[in-house]
Amino acid sequence: MKELKERILRDGKNLGGGILKVDSFINHQVDPGLMDACGREFAVRFVNVSATKILTAEISGIAPALMTALHLGLPVVYARKTKPITMPDQVFLTLAPSHTKGRMVELIVSPEYLAHGERILIIDDFLATGSTIHGLVRLAQTAGAAIVGIGALIEKSFEGGRAALKELGVPVESLVSIQSMEGDSIVFGEG
Amino acid sequence: MKELKERILRDGKNLGGGILKVDSFINHQVDPGLMDACGREFAVRFVNVSATKILTAEISGIAPALMTALHLGLPVVYARKTKPITMPDQVFLTLAPSHTKGRMVELIVSPEYLAHGERILIIDDFLATGSTIHGLVRLAQTAGAAIVGIGALIEKSFEGGRAALKELGVPVESLVSIQSMEGDSIVFGEG
Repeated sequence: MKELKERILRDGKNLGGGILKVDSFINHQVDPGLMDACGREFAVRFVNVSATKILTAEISGIAPALMTALHLGLPVVYARKTKPITMPDQVFLTLAPSHTKGRMVELIVSPEYLAHGERILIIDDFLATGSTIHGLVRLAQTAGAAIVGIGALIEKSFEGGRAALKELGVPVESLVSIQSMEGDSIVFGEG
Repeated sequence: MKELKERILRDGKNLGGGILKVDSFINHQVDPGLMDACGREFAVRFVNVSATKILTAEISGIAPALMTALHLGLPVVYARKTKPITMPDQVFLTLAPSHTKGRMVELIVSPEYLAHGERILIIDDFLATGSTIHGLVRLAQTAGAAIVGIGALIEKSFEGGRAALKELGVPVESLVSIQSMEGDSIVFGEG
């Protein structure tokens, strides 16, 4: 997606160690027009998977997932990382390593909003190693829901997440794909 | 706002102790169409305050703030509760008591995205005691930015937050106002 690629080249920063800083338009400050355009693009790509719900992880998945949900007319659930007092005692919980936090984080979804038979489209900001997305997949599968598609704004293809998701046999779409981040460069791949 | 009031009556739950559960459409599962309508309504109410940026707090402020930002054509910044590795060492940080967590939480904004002279519209999900919103006000003021308006989806008027914000002399708008939550009731006030 040209608009996102250009924005990353203009405002993104390669901080080294595979960390791409996109805090000025996705992760801390958010450009709502850009997120809306990304949501519209995901809606086009996933219009045929018959999803019934979108699933993401707080915090930075919320903006792209919400905009995708708006364009597909679906509810969105974001997995919580701490259990709020409004959630029932019995929950779906899994652990996933956090790249940017350097530790395991919990991903928690209430059984009230993830049910047997639902068709889940996962939307997140990054597809890197795929560990957060795999956590969301486990939550959905535990609930007896089916995964029907996976979308990420930015794929870091050199981290191998796509291969790890292949066994699911569902479409995996990223709006831009970064092939390498040697030195302070950001090199996009095909597509 | 009629649509939000009806939704709270239909799907909200008074859990006691002043806790209103809105997890099925705002705080865990999100209804994007409803959030879009709320964002449009905030945009109408604040169109004349000449805001340059919207400020909210992660996590549950993100959805209404993002939709308001979309309709006003402004960037939105969400204060983080933990400092990510992409943020500079020098930040704006304040502490605010969390109603639903029962402890103090940090609210952190990078000086990169909150600057002297900006005109800040604060949008959050709840206005209860006003402590989170006051934390956001302190962050903006420390940065040398002006507060030009405050909006909340749901005001719990019996918790006194509005009075505590009066000294700011800016418009405070809530889309629905709850007057009391005795027993398991939810009683709306005027407006």
